[in-house]
Amino acid sequence: MKHTKVKDLLNSAKPVDDVLVKGWVRTFRNNQFIALNDGSTINNIQCVVDFENTPAETLKRITTGAAVAVKGNLTESKGAGQKYEVQVTSLEILGDSDPEKFPMQPKKHSLEFLRENAHLRVRTNVFGAVMRVRSVLSFAIHQYFQEKGFVYVNTPIITGSDAEGAGEMFQVTSLPLNNAPLNEEGKIDYKQDFFGKETNLTVSGQLEGETFAMALGQIYTFGPTFRAENSNTSRHLAEFWMVEPEVAFNDLDANMDLAEDFIQYVIKYTMERCKDDLAFLDQRLTDEEKTKPTAERSEMSLLEKLQFVLENNFKRVSYTEAIDILKNSKPNKNKKFNYIIEEWGADLQSEHERFLVEKHFKCPVILFDYPANIKAFYMRLNEDNKTVRAMDILFPGIGEIVGGSQREERLDVLQQKIAELGIDEKELWWYLDTRRFGTAVHSGFGLGFERLVLFVTGMTNIRDVIPFPRTPQNAEF
Amino acid sequence: MKHTKVKDLLNSAKPVDDVLVKGWVRTFRNNQFIALNDGSTINNIQCVVDFENTPAETLKRITTGAAVAVKGNLTESKGAGQKYEVQVTSLEILGDSDPEKFPMQPKKHSLEFLRENAHLRVRTNVFGAVMRVRSVLSFAIHQYFQEKGFVYVNTPIITGSDAEGAGEMFQVTSLPLNNAPLNEEGKIDYKQDFFGKETNLTVSGQLEGETFAMALGQIYTFGPTFRAENSNTSRHLAEFWMVEPEVAFNDLDANMDLAEDFIQYVIKYTMERCKDDLAFLDQRLTDEEKTKPTAERSEMSLLEKLQFVLENNFKRVSYTEAIDILKNSKPNKNKKFNYIIEEWGADLQSEHERFLVEKHFKCPVILFDYPANIKAFYMRLNEDNKTVRAMDILFPGIGEIVGGSQREERLDVLQQKIAELGIDEKELWWYLDTRRFGTAVHSGFGLGFERLVLFVTGMTNIRDVIPFPRTPQNAEF
Repeated sequence: MKHTKVKDLLNSAKPVDDVLVKGWVRTFRNNQFIALNDGSTINNIQCVVDFENTPAETLKRITTGAAVAVKGNLTESKGAGQKYEVQVTSLEILGDSDPEKFPMQPKKHSLEFLRENAHLRVRTNVFGAVMRVRSVLSFAIHQYFQEKGFVYVNTPIITGSDAEGAGEMFQVTSLPLNNAPLNEEGKIDYKQDFFGKETNLTVSGQLEGETFAMALGQIYTFGPTFRAENSNTSRHLAEFWMVEPEVAFNDLDANMDLAEDFIQYVIKYTMERCKDDLAFLDQRLTDEEKTKPTAERSEMSLLEKLQFVLENNFKRVSYTEAIDILKNSKPNKNKKFNYIIEEWGADLQSEHERFLVEKHFKCPVILFDYPANIKAFYMRLNEDNKTVRAMDILFPGIGEIVGGSQREERLDVLQQKIAELGIDEKELWWYLDTRRFGTAVHSGFGLGFERLVLFVTGMTNIRDVIPFPRTPQNAEF
Repeated sequence: MKHTKVKDLLNSAKPVDDVLVKGWVRTFRNNQFIALNDGSTINNIQCVVDFENTPAETLKRITTGAAVAVKGNLTESKGAGQKYEVQVTSLEILGDSDPEKFPMQPKKHSLEFLRENAHLRVRTNVFGAVMRVRSVLSFAIHQYFQEKGFVYVNTPIITGSDAEGAGEMFQVTSLPLNNAPLNEEGKIDYKQDFFGKETNLTVSGQLEGETFAMALGQIYTFGPTFRAENSNTSRHLAEFWMVEPEVAFNDLDANMDLAEDFIQYVIKYTMERCKDDLAFLDQRLTDEEKTKPTAERSEMSLLEKLQFVLENNFKRVSYTEAIDILKNSKPNKNKKFNYIIEEWGADLQSEHERFLVEKHFKCPVILFDYPANIKAFYMRLNEDNKTVRAMDILFPGIGEIVGGSQREERLDVLQQKIAELGIDEKELWWYLDTRRFGTAVHSGFGLGFERLVLFVTGMTNIRDVIPFPRTPQNAEF
């Protein structure tokens, strides 16, 4: 007999006799009411046990976390808050769950405790909802690009190229640590390593992605990227997923249009398909906000924030304008910023970005045309010779969610920049080939997927929106 | 002015004046006919240059590989093989391509040569087609599972767990090679490494995936996996993408049903959406087959092979039946196999799998119920106490494309198996928790994505179906 998913039972058009449902007990009340969940939805189905005709031995084994198979009739429920319930005709315990030992008891656990039990936390309402939303968001990303004719490209994870300079990299090796062979110069002989050269985990698929965009026109990557940075913050992971579209013939304006349209699409798609999960997460955030002092509470609920992003254009502000705003801002004048903005050219810190987004504009902001010397070598130099066609999208509560640019398409300008930075041109021979043969204006951006999940779920720590977070001193599971 | 994609021009319902198209020159004939491609389709649009009114200096720069922007009128073409062409009214060279230097000349290049130019090979018909098909296949995989309510799970890439034993692993470290700190015992002090322990690149997300399936019911992974094996074959990569669904309450039969339905769905989806690319690859394979001796040629064309998989059930054969067939087969009796099958218990080699699939059954085969001692520890032991509920799907020309099993759900049996193998139970505490708390029958499988792409595209070397292949001594780009 085939079992039916809880979601399908709850959405049934009419009562049905003889259904089979399998799942895990969330709670068992009055020796009679099982709240059963199978992960298909955040909602449980109530299964009403005929306790007078069920052996006491069986009733004792209906504990939180136990796996059970329930046969019965789906009937309209007399109880509040649910349309249907299952009147149980037979019940089988598939797997016990010792209530003395099962860590996920039906009570509020701290997020820290749940992180230590990342293999079980997904059995809670919060993490079930977060992981379903994450999955739908992922699919929305694929659907958006595929509908528009973008080609999904799997750029390499292990890379021999160290040119992007986006941050510290993890080394990948098959050589024995502290016993690696040496070459004639007394240095480590990477020729004897698996790939015959020094290799690392990628920090970005952009450079490889560009080579594909210059053939296929529109491409996107969506895969894991890595930073070996000792950042123990609620916004950083050592391993995270990144989305990187790259489009031939797009300039910076088209790049901003794409990023904005893309973000609005995936949020809208997810709001339509994750109503129950998002309603739950909305309530969760509202409850959490109530524990804060009034002044620190958010003006909008989670769903209001999402709706706001859909209905409002992102404010586009040049770096130069932003510096003016910040220089004249109260926290700058009153020296409340840790880094006082003195003059044009300053790198913006998280506190400045948050001021612009959360206090000044109160909406998502796209900053563009940054000083060349605080941005990456591959960004298109403007005619002013001091700014580059870079853009960052800043979100309330999240900070930078997207970083992108129009790319420097001129071979000579790019070569000069590379030389100035002391990068060996030979390392980038293949990247430069895109400028040697049929170069053209092109642009792209990177979106940190977990930061998007943070925004959409209203969670506040990035470790809570990825199944098994990797952070300094933590690679459990 | 917005430019139109080549694909949209070729599919236009009627002629259109004043179109703008941007792309790369594939060929330029008679100083007049540009075959222009922008990656949106394998087909080029012919752009007819008014060479009498175009400066000679410009005509000279219309070379293979050059990026151009063409304005003109889309008209019905008088030439054969194309419905429309563009009568050029103005042409701008965006990026030159020196014909003396551009490696991708309009002639047949060897696949080896193209591999060395992986950043440019995607500008050829073959690799453009392969990469578009790969992208659509990827999306089909997501769509299949999402439609069925599976949750996409990103299991970790960097892992501290070395328990699966699927093969040699790459080490990930931030410690300086040959200068790593030692602990009091004189061993490398991994507490000082980034994650505070020894870490590797994942060989499979299965174990983590199981923990999620036992909460969310149905999950799938789709991400990169790694093997540090020195296998220089046309079927192995050091870095490849794997799809791993895992379903609570599924037994081995349901697992086989899922795998078969899944493969048929994604092939059908791709055939419907990649008609032009697959027609091209079909012709390519047919041409290649013609260079072989008649006896070695495939009986079916690429499209016929794909259609065959859609229309025929996979043949399900137990390992025990397969051994009987092999023992009594001609190549076994005539000692043509490198490994002669003597008795039950023998591990099957690629030559045996190919015989079963290509000579005996002539269709995809699912082998199941393998001897326990040649399979992984987590597979469900059958009541005979000597076989496990494992299954492999074998494809013609590809060999193993799927490996899966029903998982051992009984804590005590699993613990005993782990002890026998000398694995430290503490390493797997979290995995065993799934059996401690609410265990249930569950099953899953892994599909090597590049092998599927090989099958669907008719390519014969796995290095030709991934953008930038990683193999022993090769991590270029």
